Amino acid sequence: MIPLDVVIVPDHLAHFVLERSAVVVIDVLRATTSIAVALHSGARGILPIMTVEEAIRISGNMRRDGESVLLCGEVGGLPPEGFDLGNSPREFVPERVLNRRIMLKTTNGTVALVRSQTARYVLAGALVNLSAVAEFLHSHLESDSLDRILCVCAGREGDFSLEDFFTAGGIVDRLQDLYRSRFDLGDSAVAALEYFQSHRDNPLAVLEQSRHGRVLKGLGLGADLPACAAYDSYPVVPLCGSEGWIEKAEI
Amino acid sequence: MIPLDVVIVPDHLAHFVLERSAVVVIDVLRATTSIAVALHSGARGILPIMTVEEAIRISGNMRRDGESVLLCGEVGGLPPEGFDLGNSPREFVPERVLNRRIMLKTTNGTVALVRSQTARYVLAGALVNLSAVAEFLHSHLESDSLDRILCVCAGREGDFSLEDFFTAGGIVDRLQDLYRSRFDLGDSAVAALEYFQSHRDNPLAVLEQSRHGRVLKGLGLGADLPACAAYDSYPVVPLCGSEGWIEKAEI
Repeated sequence: MIPLDVVIVPDHLAHFVLERSAVVVIDVLRATTSIAVALHSGARGILPIMTVEEAIRISGNMRRDGESVLLCGEVGGLPPEGFDLGNSPREFVPERVLNRRIMLKTTNGTVALVRSQTARYVLAGALVNLSAVAEFLHSHLESDSLDRILCVCAGREGDFSLEDFFTAGGIVDRLQDLYRSRFDLGDSAVAALEYFQSHRDNPLAVLEQSRHGRVLKGLGLGADLPACAAYDSYPVVPLCGSEGWIEKAEI
Repeated sequence: MIPLDVVIVPDHLAHFVLERSAVVVIDVLRATTSIAVALHSGARGILPIMTVEEAIRISGNMRRDGESVLLCGEVGGLPPEGFDLGNSPREFVPERVLNRRIMLKTTNGTVALVRSQTARYVLAGALVNLSAVAEFLHSHLESDSLDRILCVCAGREGDFSLEDFFTAGGIVDRLQDLYRSRFDLGDSAVAALEYFQSHRDNPLAVLEQSRHGRVLKGLGLGADLPACAAYDSYPVVPLCGSEGWIEKAEI
């Protein structure tokens, strides 16, 4: 049986050897949702960046090289001055992002993506691409002799986040459907799966109850929540490639 | 509203200022269960210790001073050579522990207890003393102006553990009963509470499903699970005092 675990916060990744693992990084509110939406809308690639300064520096270099790059992301939920777009999935429409490269500065999702980079596959998972991600994992499990699947909750400033836990449970649920009784579920996967199954009919309520969801509402970004809660609305598989760029995987 | 959070693994304690907090450390399998049983059986105090060497050294010093001390605990689930007792709650009967001091070497519970020590109150919580711990917190919440309650899951080697998550949810449940709508629940407290409420009628099944429970069964220690699952069977409040000794609090 293949181990299938949920890592509640990125710090725990230190406990795992990742070389033959597939990692799904989950930051539903909102980085991994926005990444899926942007790729589905035709963006060429997304580079997650840790700091505003680094995002400005790298995008400046790329622009001097003649690249058409968008500077996107948030600090405290809102886009910093000089950025082209924030971190709202509603902004990543084809009219803005088609054929563009995107630098994405986010808080929690970027940390999780960077810590996962030694894995065989690093995917960006969200509710909007839940089934596509599960199907990709399913199709690569045997052909690439993966020895473990990890769903990594980006969390919130190092702490547990309800919406990522719920979504991790959703990936476990989809994988179990595809591959019944093939997985050895860790304790956190058992708990996340149950939480997902209890609330699967109302993902929006989970996002609204979460602390992060309430913060976004307070910032006037409440309209992002239904966009982030819509199952399989952007069926794309964002895959981290060389040099950290996330591109659309062939399914 | 007073924040009530569940800390999924002891590492996260670093994110909190604890001076005016009450912390309940939970290591159901088996350290905090054994601590509650030992105090209920008349032990004078328990000192959690990180290493076998330190446990042997300190108990040797105490014996030279004429103290009657028991050396107890486990490495990999079993008592090291030369120890008087292991870490099974079934061993801490009055015939063995009455009026004795106990050095307890355990893996996960000790780490969590040591990391919590700057808190205003540090309690050892388990299923066997769930209501007693909740009642103690309730009675001290206002009189001591506590600004936060944290249930800290000892976890398993830094990772999530199902039985501690369940028990943390049980403490949240009992506190909500006593103090309805007075708490601001963190995301992890919401999830743990739900998990507890779904399984409250069969705590033994939770322990049996958990990874740690399965390991104990494999070591021939399966009879510990029903002992650890028995709600309120040892209604005592283990309270960390000066120099790290855990003693029975007055309720």
